[in-house]
Amino acid sequence: MGIKTVAWTGRTMRCVDQTKLPERLVYIECRTPAAVWHALRRLAVRGAPAIGIAAAMGVVLGARRSRARSCEGFVKDVRRVARYLGSARPTAVNLFWALRRMVRVVETAATRNVRMLTRALEREAVCMIEEDNAVCRRIGIAGVRLLRVGDSVLTHCNAGGLATAEHGTALAVIFEAHARGKNIHVFVDETRPLLQGARLTAWELMRAGIHATLICDNMAARVMCEGRVDIVITGADRIAANGDTANKIGTYGLACLAAAHRVPFYIAAPLSTVDLQIASGADIPIEQRDPDEVRRIGSRWIAPRNVPVYNPAFDVTPARLIRGIITEEGIVRPPYRRNLATAVGKSTAAQGGCSL
Amino acid sequence: MGIKTVAWTGRTMRCVDQTKLPERLVYIECRTPAAVWHALRRLAVRGAPAIGIAAAMGVVLGARRSRARSCEGFVKDVRRVARYLGSARPTAVNLFWALRRMVRVVETAATRNVRMLTRALEREAVCMIEEDNAVCRRIGIAGVRLLRVGDSVLTHCNAGGLATAEHGTALAVIFEAHARGKNIHVFVDETRPLLQGARLTAWELMRAGIHATLICDNMAARVMCEGRVDIVITGADRIAANGDTANKIGTYGLACLAAAHRVPFYIAAPLSTVDLQIASGADIPIEQRDPDEVRRIGSRWIAPRNVPVYNPAFDVTPARLIRGIITEEGIVRPPYRRNLATAVGKSTAAQGGCSL
Repeated sequence: MGIKTVAWTGRTMRCVDQTKLPERLVYIECRTPAAVWHALRRLAVRGAPAIGIAAAMGVVLGARRSRARSCEGFVKDVRRVARYLGSARPTAVNLFWALRRMVRVVETAATRNVRMLTRALEREAVCMIEEDNAVCRRIGIAGVRLLRVGDSVLTHCNAGGLATAEHGTALAVIFEAHARGKNIHVFVDETRPLLQGARLTAWELMRAGIHATLICDNMAARVMCEGRVDIVITGADRIAANGDTANKIGTYGLACLAAAHRVPFYIAAPLSTVDLQIASGADIPIEQRDPDEVRRIGSRWIAPRNVPVYNPAFDVTPARLIRGIITEEGIVRPPYRRNLATAVGKSTAAQGGCSL
Repeated sequence: MGIKTVAWTGRTMRCVDQTKLPERLVYIECRTPAAVWHALRRLAVRGAPAIGIAAAMGVVLGARRSRARSCEGFVKDVRRVARYLGSARPTAVNLFWALRRMVRVVETAATRNVRMLTRALEREAVCMIEEDNAVCRRIGIAGVRLLRVGDSVLTHCNAGGLATAEHGTALAVIFEAHARGKNIHVFVDETRPLLQGARLTAWELMRAGIHATLICDNMAARVMCEGRVDIVITGADRIAANGDTANKIGTYGLACLAAAHRVPFYIAAPLSTVDLQIASGADIPIEQRDPDEVRRIGSRWIAPRNVPVYNPAFDVTPARLIRGIITEEGIVRPPYRRNLATAVGKSTAAQGGCSL
């Protein structure tokens, strides 16, 4: 892609301000945990893996501002900033996964020297970027065999480079297939209300020279009915132990439509998106967002200003509608309860080398 | 409603400019067939029944401008203006139904006096408004028994007063239930790309004091899954002899989702929307509209300016997904081929009195 969605400059978290795309490619630098929190909250940084990485960097920024001289005080400060950053978005589990990982660094460190602990946190955050790049590439390679030459993929929201550090999840599969000359076409759901498909995914695919067609979300059924969709692949924000998957609002409807048209429906996500603590999708907290996201677009009001609005940011797709989950450890198939646990076990083992 | 969506002033066709709603309630007056054609094309007037009435008035405006002195020349001019107006939108059959009806007035008239023929055309057009008001009220009464006290209805696009002369089709059922104190709640799909749900339906329902909640199109599956939708009712632009129904893009997906969630799905439409000439939905022409309707909202670009777009204005819902069609002759149930033909027969007989 050549776009570093989230990067560590050595002193700041630098990220693309995704609210400005596709009209302008603007980078912002966050110097404080509060700046990171706001970037997450207003979706300047979005996408489960990118959220996790940005939050980890927010912890580093917070740790650097700690005035604690004792190790105990420092650990307390790190926990406090982690809790604060965790309040930015409730649904994507990668946020909590990344924050827990950062807290564990200071809790389990061999040293009690505050400066060394701070450096350890920084190394961990940078390590997450490298891991994310490797994981995304492996997702691409794992999923590429699902795509035949000339296939048409439908995707929702943005699970591209902009949702991760650099390479994407659902789009990693498409990028890999494109690199192998498979001549892929992609239908891009615009993804109301915040239009991540229209603004981000269409932009990424065009930059990569991949043939894309933008549709409104309500056109997906029609293109499926016309026999023009071979496979649906989306990202995920949290996957429960039984395979139920929270992702951008609209994903569940798409999965229902895919089932009705016998189009295979896949999720692509790193195993850090799997939350084995949660038995099923019913327990995943769903973020409710500002009604004005629906009532207006930019500064233009598109509905009566006082109309009541329901604006859940995510929905939950039950495991029975998911043909497979494309992860860095391969494609996980049903039964998910057993197979996800196995894959997470492998992945934790594989990642062991990077922790302090 | 108190809003005359389309009206005849005696010299001009006066209509609400629906592109300005909900921010401003603006009326425009069309003095020429070209002005009517453009009002139809840019969706200042939209909704199958309203389109038919506006086009009929366009014929009157054209007939008045005819310089023909002979009856033959006049009939030729009327046919020409009817053909021209018929080119504004291809899908809604009410347009062609209304235009044929106007042409028949001059073809079958007892007089050959051009001034009297012009007056006959004017009377026919005004008659269509009165008929439409009566038909819409009868649709409301026919459908009201489908709604129980406290029911939650989901609707798509605008099948309200703004889609007809005054009372609406799908919304006529809701207005009638509201008038009977049934305490109805309505989920309103915003209906991308032109947002008729957000702009028009939400506005109409709020004016009528009916509890409405606006959602993005891609949220419908979620609210159904939550058990919050008791029935789906939409309008129609053309109903084939077998019951297959063309309506605003997104309707087909909604019908699939309703089936998956065991929510009854109904169409509400006047019998002038039924096209017995067409055997099935496969033969209904689907209007493809400007890609910029998807690429931008108002003046704001929400996607890369050169991204390819698929923008069908309508889709076709197969009859098997439709529980019933609410018409002025009652609720038509399957088998549609037989029952629609019977209902159309009755309705033609009922309307006989109004023709020349």
